[in-house]
Amino acid sequence: MPETEFVTTLVVYDLVGIFVFAVSGALVAVRKNLDLFAALVLGGVTGLGGGFIRDVLIGATPPAALADWRYLIVPVAAGLLTFFLHAPLGRLERFITVFDAFGLALFCVTGALKAVGYGLEPVPAALLGMVTGIGGGMIRDVLAGSVPVIFEGVVYATPALAGATVAVLLNETDLPMWVVAAAGFATCLSFRLLAMVRGWRAPMPKGPANV
Amino acid sequence: MPETEFVTTLVVYDLVGIFVFAVSGALVAVRKNLDLFAALVLGGVTGLGGGFIRDVLIGATPPAALADWRYLIVPVAAGLLTFFLHAPLGRLERFITVFDAFGLALFCVTGALKAVGYGLEPVPAALLGMVTGIGGGMIRDVLAGSVPVIFEGVVYATPALAGATVAVLLNETDLPMWVVAAAGFATCLSFRLLAMVRGWRAPMPKGPANV
Amino acid sequence: MPETEFVTTLVVYDLVGIFVFAVSGALVAVRKNLDLFAALVLGGVTGLGGGFIRDVLIGATPPAALADWRYLIVPVAAGLLTFFLHAPLGRLERFITVFDAFGLALFCVTGALKAVGYGLEPVPAALLGMVTGIGGGMIRDVLAGSVPVIFEGVVYATPALAGATVAVLLNETDLPMWVVAAAGFATCLSFRLLAMVRGWRAPMPKGPANV
Repeated sequence: MPETEFVTTLVVYDLVGIFVFAVSGALVAVRKNLDLFAALVLGGVTGLGGGFIRDVLIGATPPAALADWRYLIVPVAAGLLTFFLHAPLGRLERFITVFDAFGLALFCVTGALKAVGYGLEPVPAALLGMVTGIGGGMIRDVLAGSVPVIFEGVVYATPALAGATVAVLLNETDLPMWVVAAAGFATCLSFRLLAMVRGWRAPMPKGPANV
Repeated sequence: MPETEFVTTLVVYDLVGIFVFAVSGALVAVRKNLDLFAALVLGGVTGLGGGFIRDVLIGATPPAALADWRYLIVPVAAGLLTFFLHAPLGRLERFITVFDAFGLALFCVTGALKAVGYGLEPVPAALLGMVTGIGGGMIRDVLAGSVPVIFEGVVYATPALAGATVAVLLNETDLPMWVVAAAGFATCLSFRLLAMVRGWRAPMPKGPANV
Repeated sequence: MPETEFVTTLVVYDLVGIFVFAVSGALVAVRKNLDLFAALVLGGVTGLGGGFIRDVLIGATPPAALADWRYLIVPVAAGLLTFFLHAPLGRLERFITVFDAFGLALFCVTGALKAVGYGLEPVPAALLGMVTGIGGGMIRDVLAGSVPVIFEGVVYATPALAGATVAVLLNETDLPMWVVAAAGFATCLSFRLLAMVRGWRAPMPKGPANV
């Protein structure tokens, strides 16, 4: 695949990922009976928050999303759409969850590779890839007054960490960038979808937690 | 108005805005029966938090408030005052809400213009102006264990976005800076006060949110 | 004490502080019956979050902990240990609280001196020292869905501010760095331990908070 085509593909995937994440954020707002503005804010932070945390931590400010209006229009469109059409969107939830897995797989890879590009070592770069994937949803849940859903047994962060790790490790080889990205993406996506289909749960603490 | 006088006026308004925001933060602490330290922290983050988020996102670190002790003394004074005199202050609440609108109107304009000064495009600059105005209150509510009040129908963020947008647009013209700032300020303030007087509410989701 | 030995001692104390803070974070996850991943995340943010906030605010990005894998391994180890051995660890809680006071005393001093090193004035530097000490625990509580425990009467932030202030003030003198650090450390530690032993409580608001 030629380099420019690859970059265009990445941007398109990125915008799709932001859109789907933003829909999930706006749906939380609607379900908590919050107003239109909350739908837009929760949509925005879910779609863009993970990347913001990464960019602030690696010193890549202002974040890319604040330098390219397409990255701002997409969550606004997702928020408006969700607010006014939440009933049909809610029925598509299983479908959305699959798209959400695509977004997670993309964000963990682009996040990790961007961190490598800013000079981070492999271990923190993989960690920041995971943060890019899961950070937006965590801010969404905290702003909506909930404990992050990924703390309650959902297998979500581990696939993101796995995909980011694969991308960071392969990036040390001579493989072309798109192979590196595709391998990380496929790792996270297949792991996440498998966890959904099989109903895997993260380990819960055993025994009484003597408070 | 000469330039230096204008800057002095801005700093005075800025400190007044921080003071009023800090009072609102400390009042939340008192009403949740939290301790003196909570009143100081919630006062501080409400007064300074929006500017901190903006400065971190545009890379203007350390934030202005950490380089000028007056910006730190004001929220401390507001927090102490509120903690020890919360009963009379609580009775002045309607009065405080009007001052709060002044703070919002000021912060959205200065925030947006600072973002422009750091090279951001008009759309993200207007957005950061809004964030400067509403960010502190959102952190206040999250730290106090509540869903942000501006998610529940209050018309608050839209006036901030309107004021920031007016300032950013007029800033593209040849108008003197103080006219640009005054127009943005007046837009936000009149919009917010009108919303309060008329009891406007933000749109709420319609129909059942099939959870 | 020779300079290099002093630096090694600081790193060791730093890692011990991170470890103990991370145990406290992971214990919160276990007690809320959250999953293994939550134990790791809450451990990580409790151990590293205060330093992250400081580094982002002073523009020292990427934070030190993202440039040195030892700072990432320690909270992971603490999180795993706590998740699988929470029952015996919970019984050691009083012991942990004493270690936690060591962590607080160390973080407030190193945080304040780092801020001074980045050119901040004494007042904001002392404040950032306090934030370094208390920030991680505040993020922990917010992510776990609670109001920060230090808002409810615990004497915790004041010792951190006192230790940071002593370090910042003595740093203006000709005293060797290790004396400066030791004096700040001792101030915070003795203040915190005394508050624990004597059962001191922070001032609470008086009278009805007319909501």
